[in-house]
Amino acid sequence: MRKYSVAVLGATGMVGQKFIQILSNHEWFDIKSLVASEKRVGKFYGEEVEWKVSANVPEKVRDIEMLPMDPKKVDADIVFSALPSDTARKVEADFASEGFVVASNASAFRMEKDVPLMIPEVNPEHLGLIEVQKKNRNWDGFIVTNPNCTTIILVLSLKPLMDLGLKRVIVSSMQALSGAGYPGVPSLAIMDNVLPFIKGEEEKVEEEPLKLLGKFNGSEVEYADLTVSASCHRVPVIDGHLEAVWAEFSRDVEVDEVIDAFNSLKPLDLPTSPEKVIIVRKESDRPQPRLDRDEGDGMSITVGRVRKDSSNAIKYLVLGHNTVRGAAGASILNAELMIKEKLI
Amino acid sequence: MRKYSVAVLGATGMVGQKFIQILSNHEWFDIKSLVASEKRVGKFYGEEVEWKVSANVPEKVRDIEMLPMDPKKVDADIVFSALPSDTARKVEADFASEGFVVASNASAFRMEKDVPLMIPEVNPEHLGLIEVQKKNRNWDGFIVTNPNCTTIILVLSLKPLMDLGLKRVIVSSMQALSGAGYPGVPSLAIMDNVLPFIKGEEEKVEEEPLKLLGKFNGSEVEYADLTVSASCHRVPVIDGHLEAVWAEFSRDVEVDEVIDAFNSLKPLDLPTSPEKVIIVRKESDRPQPRLDRDEGDGMSITVGRVRKDSSNAIKYLVLGHNTVRGAAGASILNAELMIKEKLI
Amino acid sequence: MRKYSVAVLGATGMVGQKFIQILSNHEWFDIKSLVASEKRVGKFYGEEVEWKVSANVPEKVRDIEMLPMDPKKVDADIVFSALPSDTARKVEADFASEGFVVASNASAFRMEKDVPLMIPEVNPEHLGLIEVQKKNRNWDGFIVTNPNCTTIILVLSLKPLMDLGLKRVIVSSMQALSGAGYPGVPSLAIMDNVLPFIKGEEEKVEEEPLKLLGKFNGSEVEYADLTVSASCHRVPVIDGHLEAVWAEFSRDVEVDEVIDAFNSLKPLDLPTSPEKVIIVRKESDRPQPRLDRDEGDGMSITVGRVRKDSSNAIKYLVLGHNTVRGAAGASILNAELMIKEKLI
Amino acid sequence: MRKYSVAVLGATGMVGQKFIQILSNHEWFDIKSLVASEKRVGKFYGEEVEWKVSANVPEKVRDIEMLPMDPKKVDADIVFSALPSDTARKVEADFASEGFVVASNASAFRMEKDVPLMIPEVNPEHLGLIEVQKKNRNWDGFIVTNPNCTTIILVLSLKPLMDLGLKRVIVSSMQALSGAGYPGVPSLAIMDNVLPFIKGEEEKVEEEPLKLLGKFNGSEVEYADLTVSASCHRVPVIDGHLEAVWAEFSRDVEVDEVIDAFNSLKPLDLPTSPEKVIIVRKESDRPQPRLDRDEGDGMSITVGRVRKDSSNAIKYLVLGHNTVRGAAGASILNAELMIKEKLI
Repeated sequence: MRKYSVAVLGATGMVGQKFIQILSNHEWFDIKSLVASEKRVGKFYGEEVEWKVSANVPEKVRDIEMLPMDPKKVDADIVFSALPSDTARKVEADFASEGFVVASNASAFRMEKDVPLMIPEVNPEHLGLIEVQKKNRNWDGFIVTNPNCTTIILVLSLKPLMDLGLKRVIVSSMQALSGAGYPGVPSLAIMDNVLPFIKGEEEKVEEEPLKLLGKFNGSEVEYADLTVSASCHRVPVIDGHLEAVWAEFSRDVEVDEVIDAFNSLKPLDLPTSPEKVIIVRKESDRPQPRLDRDEGDGMSITVGRVRKDSSNAIKYLVLGHNTVRGAAGASILNAELMIKEKLI
Repeated sequence: MRKYSVAVLGATGMVGQKFIQILSNHEWFDIKSLVASEKRVGKFYGEEVEWKVSANVPEKVRDIEMLPMDPKKVDADIVFSALPSDTARKVEADFASEGFVVASNASAFRMEKDVPLMIPEVNPEHLGLIEVQKKNRNWDGFIVTNPNCTTIILVLSLKPLMDLGLKRVIVSSMQALSGAGYPGVPSLAIMDNVLPFIKGEEEKVEEEPLKLLGKFNGSEVEYADLTVSASCHRVPVIDGHLEAVWAEFSRDVEVDEVIDAFNSLKPLDLPTSPEKVIIVRKESDRPQPRLDRDEGDGMSITVGRVRKDSSNAIKYLVLGHNTVRGAAGASILNAELMIKEKLI
Repeated sequence: MRKYSVAVLGATGMVGQKFIQILSNHEWFDIKSLVASEKRVGKFYGEEVEWKVSANVPEKVRDIEMLPMDPKKVDADIVFSALPSDTARKVEADFASEGFVVASNASAFRMEKDVPLMIPEVNPEHLGLIEVQKKNRNWDGFIVTNPNCTTIILVLSLKPLMDLGLKRVIVSSMQALSGAGYPGVPSLAIMDNVLPFIKGEEEKVEEEPLKLLGKFNGSEVEYADLTVSASCHRVPVIDGHLEAVWAEFSRDVEVDEVIDAFNSLKPLDLPTSPEKVIIVRKESDRPQPRLDRDEGDGMSITVGRVRKDSSNAIKYLVLGHNTVRGAAGASILNAELMIKEKLI
Repeated sequence: MRKYSVAVLGATGMVGQKFIQILSNHEWFDIKSLVASEKRVGKFYGEEVEWKVSANVPEKVRDIEMLPMDPKKVDADIVFSALPSDTARKVEADFASEGFVVASNASAFRMEKDVPLMIPEVNPEHLGLIEVQKKNRNWDGFIVTNPNCTTIILVLSLKPLMDLGLKRVIVSSMQALSGAGYPGVPSLAIMDNVLPFIKGEEEKVEEEPLKLLGKFNGSEVEYADLTVSASCHRVPVIDGHLEAVWAEFSRDVEVDEVIDAFNSLKPLDLPTSPEKVIIVRKESDRPQPRLDRDEGDGMSITVGRVRKDSSNAIKYLVLGHNTVRGAAGASILNAELMIKEKLI
């Protein structure tokens, strides 16, 4: 199989580094271009980046000269975006209008009516929006987005519960530091502490699931009939978002049904897809961020403590790797799906 | 005013140390007896204790010889109990039947029908159970208990919401390490991690509020008409339990009403009572365990991020010091109330 | 006694906050002016500062309007400086030349020949340099500095060893996060980690002690005949620098002599002076940052594990509070000494 | 090549788990027997162990029934020992006298005159002691030990410096929590703290290097002419010991010579041997435990900040993975060397 050349926008940030780490060993992709902010243009990646995600910058990207955020200067089959949301709004549109396929982790376009917000195992049929988008915007390329990290982990666990009559979700998150980027959270702010607020997070966790779990009717997505209420908190953990979920159904549900549903979510036949999408732990004290975040190379989520609340409600915990399944790995899996579906 | 002599049962554990720390500077109480497990009897407290709560064992208890758990060997006006629950069941009963007033932090007797489960600002009238208890059990003394640490902090915030029509509470806790005692949680278990399970905790947080917020009818407590669902988690924080609360009411409620209600909970005129019982923070990122746990010398709780959810629901965060307001300070405040009410 | 009015330069940073926290309850000083960078001028302190050192900004400074770094706009008997070193070089000179007494924690002037580098218990006679400085520079006011935080803690322990023939010191530090200011060290950089480098620190720890322990001959300080070699490291601790010291002497020394020497360092009769300057612990596992940093309200240092190495060498650990004894408290103690010596 | 069957003594502890983790994927070794304390005998490993070193107990050991510490009940070509020192003294001798080859991480026999204390890259010729040992003790088998974790990491860096005239070493360690086993260090003891004492550690770090760097003369090891002074400290880091080294030589040495010497230490041609034994970092802020501990799958050590002190002295930092290179990996590398040398 031929390899696809890829570019990474926002290559020096935490999510950018995670993209590069995963893409460096990817069987389908070849990193060709690294795009960064103005002041870094022309410099070598290995000399500029404050590499944080492992001991060493991967050999093959060290000597790549960084490019500006200008589609005319970039050559690639796929563009992965790790841009901050405000920058993404302009830059991603520039690339898409110039004919690039943009797989974005930014929030800028997620809730636009004609932009797919995707988790391959959850709503692959939403890729149908690409045609709508290209027509609407008169673009040669297009943008496909993945959700917020906390949303992805949550929705992967909610998807199999939809058929059981899921109506209402109340979720309380304990989120990792890497979700705030680098330098991100000051150590003096978080040591021996919890921060009870993450700007913009609860809104995303409450809204994005309705689109993700909605139905594509050929021209747009009809939002799911579901209520999500979120309280989001930052804890002193490096990687791995843990979420305490209370789920209410339209009918009485049993723990066994819920576990069967979790186990029924099938992995896709894609390089970054894990062997098991949802790992269900039976121990009373799992999932734990440090022990479970790397399952499926960070692409599995782990569920545990599934227990009955009142007759129509179930409680459980769900954990996933926020910068892999929740960010870089999510965009990459989206790109893989598009290749398989011959959209690239 | 004359001072009351007090004994501490379970004096060497974390809660025992906290009792001693607070009692060492107490205007009403004088530490007379320290009671410990068999192997420590006869030894000096200062030489035996692995003191963890400050730099030095308070001068005045260093040379106290520890006594056995035998009421005949102990002399005190009030007995504070920091015993583990299984030991408490026998030992506290022994002391009460021998005529001692036992103010207990243990869970052993909390849910007994004739034992007051008390938070002075919440349900002082439940002290009426003392007469019932003495009669029932034919004891000269009696036992008064305080709730679980997570419960106390939660219920202090729920009490003023009862009049607004509170019906259902879903709470997710982020609890401190000191709640597990010493040695307690191994560092290798909790560094860069969250533990999603605390044995027996959720049951206590779901049941105890119903008794606390219930009505004493002269002979027993009628439980409150309320549902509490809890998910309890341990985070890498030394002191201070943070709880994310979702509260549903029988009618539409507004944020301002809720804040007014919080501010309406009055402190008592007792030595350990804080100036403000509930501190309401307006900042978006409070309460935080490290910044807010010591408010009111650890006896205030702090509430923040009060926000509207759906029409009938409110979300907020509440924080309190788990070993002060949530344990030793709670028992001491109970004792102070009993003195004021001339029950001692 | 009348109160002295004081100003704080650099009032919003971590050390500035610590100055304000200590000065808010000081019997001799009254905070009159808070000086900050251009963008904060005219704003209220309580609204601008990202207060990190306790739950609340002290009442009495909340409504102080911040002033620019211009001596003509400031009125105070004493100016405390918490400025970064590069800013300090110009601003402190401006204030001194305008007649202000500047008690500075910045490194800018520390090693200047005519500027006292002071620890009141160590080298009070170096205040004689003030006259030299005023003459040299033709200033109406003057600057007095305190050393780097790691230096202060180390040198307080070295001072009493000089008479035993101290010749060489090798020190390895484990320094707290607050030493790097706010936001300072990113949490992702230090969680589950140690940073083996602190810019400029080792040079200061190797040079400043020679001046501090030197002899003022009436016109200048003759440096002490001593070698200090330092390796400085940042550890995940909020406050409190711990230092492992290896000290070599010109003759055989015994542990008892060293402990006697530590105990012989006398406190001064000043408000911020602790009851004991050096606390010597006998336990095998002390000093510890969290347990011992607040001794003497952060102004005592604690020494432990004094043990014999080879015949002429001794090893020990020393700990102190880096932002109190090592920074704000140090400048304040210097100012108190100057008042007592009638230099202000 | 045929596989060697191996047993692990003390299989459920932290080092035992690390043995099993490495051995599970080892090309030469096959885990056959797991030996544990009396109360676990007969139980399945997967059900008994409190597995801490990764998400899951390796499949192939889950159903192994644990055996007692009796050589007659165990069958294996090589016995790896992760026993605590006091138990090791009897049990390892039992196994060796019954004809087993014991590769031990315990300290019990390390300093015995006829027992090799080994680091394959440092003193392979000390294996000559095996013959002496078998003769002396009339054993069919024999014991080979590896040093203390802090010693191994230090001595790997000292070995190449011996030819430059190394005379004196002063080392200050910042050691990881995993070195204390499980449950080991309580979280309440180490959060926001450093523990300045590790029982027995400094003695080992001061004595073992003299044997390791000594000369085998055919019948015994003549200790190296070197002085090591150590101060050992526990920091809140999961894995990876960091050591600040001050090294004095008999002559003037330059930084470049030292770096060349580090680079000259050659890896062995053995399965567990890393590609590079010593990685020299040029950045000012390396090595760091979290970033560098896994280099060479935990078998490389990383050196950094090599800098000149006085004319005859050099300072540097060295880091290694304490439970891999410093424990389980060390024993396994010893066993591999013995196989290559046809001693097994």
